Amino acid sequence: MTEWKAYQDANKDRFLNELLHLLRIPSVSANSNHKEDMLHCANVVKQRLEEAGADIVTIYPTDGHPIVYGEKIIDATKPTVLVYGHYDVQPADPLELWHSGPFEPIIKDGKIFARGACDDKGQFYMHIKALEIFTNTNTLGSNIKFLIEGEEEIGSPNLASFVKNNKQLLKADVILISDTSMLSMENPSIDIGVRGLSYIEVEVTGTNRDLHSGVYGGAVANPITILAQMIASCHDANNHITIPGFYDDIIEATPAERAKLAQAPFDEAAYKTDLGITALWGEKGYSTNERTGIRPTLEVNGIWGGYTGEGAKTVLPSKAFAKISCRLVPNQSSAVITQKILNYFNTIAPAGVSVKAEEHHGGEPYMTPIDSIAYRAAAKAVETTFGKEPIPLRGGGSIPICALFEKELGLKIVFLGFGLDSDNLHSPNEKFNLENFYKGIETIPYFHQYFAAMNV
Amino acid sequence: MTEWKAYQDANKDRFLNELLHLLRIPSVSANSNHKEDMLHCANVVKQRLEEAGADIVTIYPTDGHPIVYGEKIIDATKPTVLVYGHYDVQPADPLELWHSGPFEPIIKDGKIFARGACDDKGQFYMHIKALEIFTNTNTLGSNIKFLIEGEEEIGSPNLASFVKNNKQLLKADVILISDTSMLSMENPSIDIGVRGLSYIEVEVTGTNRDLHSGVYGGAVANPITILAQMIASCHDANNHITIPGFYDDIIEATPAERAKLAQAPFDEAAYKTDLGITALWGEKGYSTNERTGIRPTLEVNGIWGGYTGEGAKTVLPSKAFAKISCRLVPNQSSAVITQKILNYFNTIAPAGVSVKAEEHHGGEPYMTPIDSIAYRAAAKAVETTFGKEPIPLRGGGSIPICALFEKELGLKIVFLGFGLDSDNLHSPNEKFNLENFYKGIETIPYFHQYFAAMNV
Repeated sequence: MTEWKAYQDANKDRFLNELLHLLRIPSVSANSNHKEDMLHCANVVKQRLEEAGADIVTIYPTDGHPIVYGEKIIDATKPTVLVYGHYDVQPADPLELWHSGPFEPIIKDGKIFARGACDDKGQFYMHIKALEIFTNTNTLGSNIKFLIEGEEEIGSPNLASFVKNNKQLLKADVILISDTSMLSMENPSIDIGVRGLSYIEVEVTGTNRDLHSGVYGGAVANPITILAQMIASCHDANNHITIPGFYDDIIEATPAERAKLAQAPFDEAAYKTDLGITALWGEKGYSTNERTGIRPTLEVNGIWGGYTGEGAKTVLPSKAFAKISCRLVPNQSSAVITQKILNYFNTIAPAGVSVKAEEHHGGEPYMTPIDSIAYRAAAKAVETTFGKEPIPLRGGGSIPICALFEKELGLKIVFLGFGLDSDNLHSPNEKFNLENFYKGIETIPYFHQYFAAMNV
Repeated sequence: MTEWKAYQDANKDRFLNELLHLLRIPSVSANSNHKEDMLHCANVVKQRLEEAGADIVTIYPTDGHPIVYGEKIIDATKPTVLVYGHYDVQPADPLELWHSGPFEPIIKDGKIFARGACDDKGQFYMHIKALEIFTNTNTLGSNIKFLIEGEEEIGSPNLASFVKNNKQLLKADVILISDTSMLSMENPSIDIGVRGLSYIEVEVTGTNRDLHSGVYGGAVANPITILAQMIASCHDANNHITIPGFYDDIIEATPAERAKLAQAPFDEAAYKTDLGITALWGEKGYSTNERTGIRPTLEVNGIWGGYTGEGAKTVLPSKAFAKISCRLVPNQSSAVITQKILNYFNTIAPAGVSVKAEEHHGGEPYMTPIDSIAYRAAAKAVETTFGKEPIPLRGGGSIPICALFEKELGLKIVFLGFGLDSDNLHSPNEKFNLENFYKGIETIPYFHQYFAAMNV
């Protein structure tokens, strides 16, 4: 519809400025200092939904950060799309590596730089603007609901009970999520799966106090050394994960799927150059795309212990800590894997140290059926605006709530992501290309149109 | 001499208050923020030496922190004792584990709690008070020189050139150092050796920026995982150190020395209870006293990388760091061992990461001959005031400058330490028992008396 594009073109600067305003709010869900910023952000999202034409917009408080729900129902007999997104963002540190303030968005070389630019403020906001386009061009042909939460980056601890208690409110025909990436503007792709997540924190305690490393060194277990040994023992020489039973429940990708995946464009030299490395690393027997898509992983996200300041201190510390997370694939269960990791760490600890391993959060893996109406509508929408059929890919990230959506609401999920892998998600200098933001707003209305048409 | 004891008893409260004043100065040599505190502390030491009767006291600037030199020469033909100590202290963090401020000394249960209480302000100050006693009782029978530096805790980087350039100034018959511990007040001991030190910092770099652990995890080397593998590989299953050539130059302790060491009282149950652990750890084939005395060690003093804040962040970090130090025994060379560790870390790094390993500082091991006049004078002094012959032991700590003293000045060193292993050196809640402080001041004059008499 040229009408949609014309409306966007006439309003594109305002669309961008509204997004920049949203990006200035430091809505970091993991840090309790940002509780008020979270509430403020939820209120801005509510206001924008109302301005875009949503009829009812409500902020639902939770035990954590609030959920924003809005809807535009034109005809209860027509199909309904439930749009899910999140207004919370990852912590911004290490701050010193940002070229500009993480919450002071700037536009440079056609890119918006800010924490949350792509993940997920820039992406869910495309859907609010798509609603505005429908409203102001009077072209909405089906129903839209919005569920924008504030705890995705911390594992959605309060969304499950909200979903269970509000099944009628959330009743829909499909869930649409823009929180993933595509290969490139030239090679559009659609993620057909997201990985699950197990995230634990390990605390290793040796002696009851820090000690002089000369007086006691060599005679008592050093918790940093022990923790390093534990972490080192999690991979074997082929970079397979050694935790007992870790791979037990996996449904291996079929040779057909692996063959299809192998056709996706991948330029290893460019990949290495972009990351500044001379060699890749990973599980023997799998390609890079397989390692990040169809295989589970175990990564250390943080480690600390002892003296970390300037200069030298000859201390033998009392404690050492690590944050460790696994990405999971169908049909690994987050709860089962978490328990296996916790058991493993407790089992391999030598006498002389104690281990406290606790779960941060988790999420189950999820796969979208490629033959579903929802996937076909999404693929057709992308083909309409990009002029090229999208490649179905498995995404490496996690959206913890997907499996629960399917279980509780009986709905399939389609991932219509417009980010790029190079958008520095969860890293300093997160960005979202302006071109992708506008292309997303252009594409989303077609999805609604095609999905409604196919559902008739 | 009852006269010495009487003088001390009449002035003991002032002695203590002067020490507390010294402990209030945060003279942390490792941290450049404390540069002015260091200079202030040097000036206080100078003033106290002058008040105690030293004739010439000079503050010598260096490229780092200044050196305080003072002397009391009564007769150039008499023996001269050079007292070495250091007014700098270890960093105080982790601050949250201190029960009271590290630089707000308090007396509790007969103990002085403060950073530097024992290491080394409380100990070198005993010597200044011994000089005051000699001066005011008019009993000094030989010469005393004081060399109190401000960089011991960072490896004495500027003392070597000072010693080389001031051999005449530092001319003496023996060097006396109180910077070590004894077994207990009931079982006095004298350290006959200190270990050497190699201290390095390792930086492992993977990709050129932090990444999303879902998007890139499993496909590139995680520098924390690699660093953990490197650290884990430094010890084998028997806790022997695996760095090639690490043990090559060691002069093994003789069976006779090991037999003597085995006779030192050691209550394993009490040791474990004090440290709050249920099992010891260490190199197979050696006792705890051997592990901390006659054997070299490799300890991780600090580690950091990735996200270490509250909650969870699914980051795959660009860098990971560790501070690692080795204690060395005769005849390991600090420079040689440091090079072997650096080589080892560079060699085992897989493609896909780069390793930058740098030396912080080092020091050579040192042994005192047990049949020397100096040792015999020290043993007799301890026996005089403790009523029991001291046990010769090997200390676990390091005093980096000892080997240089011997080489440049041709002098033997005697360690007359009055601390206890439980004094929390380099740890939170460092303390020095009042009883040990006063007993040290009582013992030191006898050393001078006996040493002068034996030297005639």
